[in-house]
Amino acid sequence: MKRNIRLLIEYDGGRYRGWQKQGKNADADTIQGRLEQVLSRMTGEDVQLIGSGRTDAGVHALGQVANFHTDCGMSCGEIRDYLTRYLPADIGILKVSDAGERFHSRLNAAEKTYCYRIAVPGVPHVFDRKYLWHFPEPLDMKKMEQAADFLTGRHDFKGFSSIKRTKKSTVRELYAIDIEKKEKEILISFTGNGFLHNMVRILTGTLVEIGCGRKQPEDVLTVLQTKDRQDAGMTAPPQGLFLVSVKY
Amino acid sequence: MKRNIRLLIEYDGGRYRGWQKQGKNADADTIQGRLEQVLSRMTGEDVQLIGSGRTDAGVHALGQVANFHTDCGMSCGEIRDYLTRYLPADIGILKVSDAGERFHSRLNAAEKTYCYRIAVPGVPHVFDRKYLWHFPEPLDMKKMEQAADFLTGRHDFKGFSSIKRTKKSTVRELYAIDIEKKEKEILISFTGNGFLHNMVRILTGTLVEIGCGRKQPEDVLTVLQTKDRQDAGMTAPPQGLFLVSVKY
Repeated sequence: MKRNIRLLIEYDGGRYRGWQKQGKNADADTIQGRLEQVLSRMTGEDVQLIGSGRTDAGVHALGQVANFHTDCGMSCGEIRDYLTRYLPADIGILKVSDAGERFHSRLNAAEKTYCYRIAVPGVPHVFDRKYLWHFPEPLDMKKMEQAADFLTGRHDFKGFSSIKRTKKSTVRELYAIDIEKKEKEILISFTGNGFLHNMVRILTGTLVEIGCGRKQPEDVLTVLQTKDRQDAGMTAPPQGLFLVSVKY
Repeated sequence: MKRNIRLLIEYDGGRYRGWQKQGKNADADTIQGRLEQVLSRMTGEDVQLIGSGRTDAGVHALGQVANFHTDCGMSCGEIRDYLTRYLPADIGILKVSDAGERFHSRLNAAEKTYCYRIAVPGVPHVFDRKYLWHFPEPLDMKKMEQAADFLTGRHDFKGFSSIKRTKKSTVRELYAIDIEKKEKEILISFTGNGFLHNMVRILTGTLVEIGCGRKQPEDVLTVLQTKDRQDAGMTAPPQGLFLVSVKY
């Protein structure tokens, strides 16, 4: 029986076309492609890596989870050392472990947390400038928190996604949206049982439009009702978004 | 009488040829050149910026100090906002203040602190990978600390500099060298009344060669005695070095 190896991965998505492999010839452009390249060379097998979910082009991860099946006899420590040696410096392996036979990174994911970083305008961000949304206007925290309260809970989030048509359910549960004002940035954390395509970025863009007064907190209730993408706010840019953790 | 404006500056030196302007036509390549460009446009004057000292190509600053004389009537807040708007994102203005008439960033500097960051090998540094020296061997902290003790104090540091010939004194006083082992990095801080060209990088390179066993702690005593650059260790790469603060 093959081993089932679980990886905990962090990456700077800045120069990649996202997590998901785009095709046989574009391996180096995606995080999954890069990892499969190195894993296949390491094992001598054609490794298929299963991620907990996709991240868009330019989006980062502090705790992406993925798994793959292999006959490779290396210890977890040896696998980790091999990957650390041969992966580019913008992809890091935080943990390697043997998972149960039936573990599946995507299907078994029970809870995910994302965070989104927004720079306070006028304050320099020299060393983390590539990991923030530099939105130029001040934001009203109270209004954003009010909208966040409306969004928390079990809803059909179709209007907050870029999904056009689907037979699958677009109902998700948001357990918490925390908005924290720090000295130099506003940090928004989203925890839920799952997220639709672009959902965190559209939620963030909508919260920011509410924060700067272009929209009202109640407008999110309209989006939940009409389920129309047009009623929601802009899609926040990718570089401020981090997949923080996945729970099983 | 002209105003004397003092700036507190942070920068990512990664894409610059260092602090010091190289010539009239290379303004955009150096931190000083970039700043003078924007300051001259702002004031309509030919601004000459005095820095507390040079930093090499690729070296960063968390607290560089500089000053310039001007007839400009803008408030310090307005100057700060103007600079923040027109400077590139890798140069940040932390503070603008009116200094006394006789204040001179370089001549009045009484104490400087630099720090040097060395990555612990095998540990991923995805988001700060460009701000560390990725030295591949483990380092013996005790030996490095022993050498640091020998180096602390008032000495002729000529052997730890890239100065070939000079009539000026190469005696400096190092008040403290602190070596701190963190989870993912070793941080070496140097505080002294002044530093010779490349001195922090050569001290760091020498400490690292001692830490990995290629040299012995006592070897630094030889360098202090012979004053010969050949007897010291390698010059550590620029990207791990930060000018932390300047005291007056």
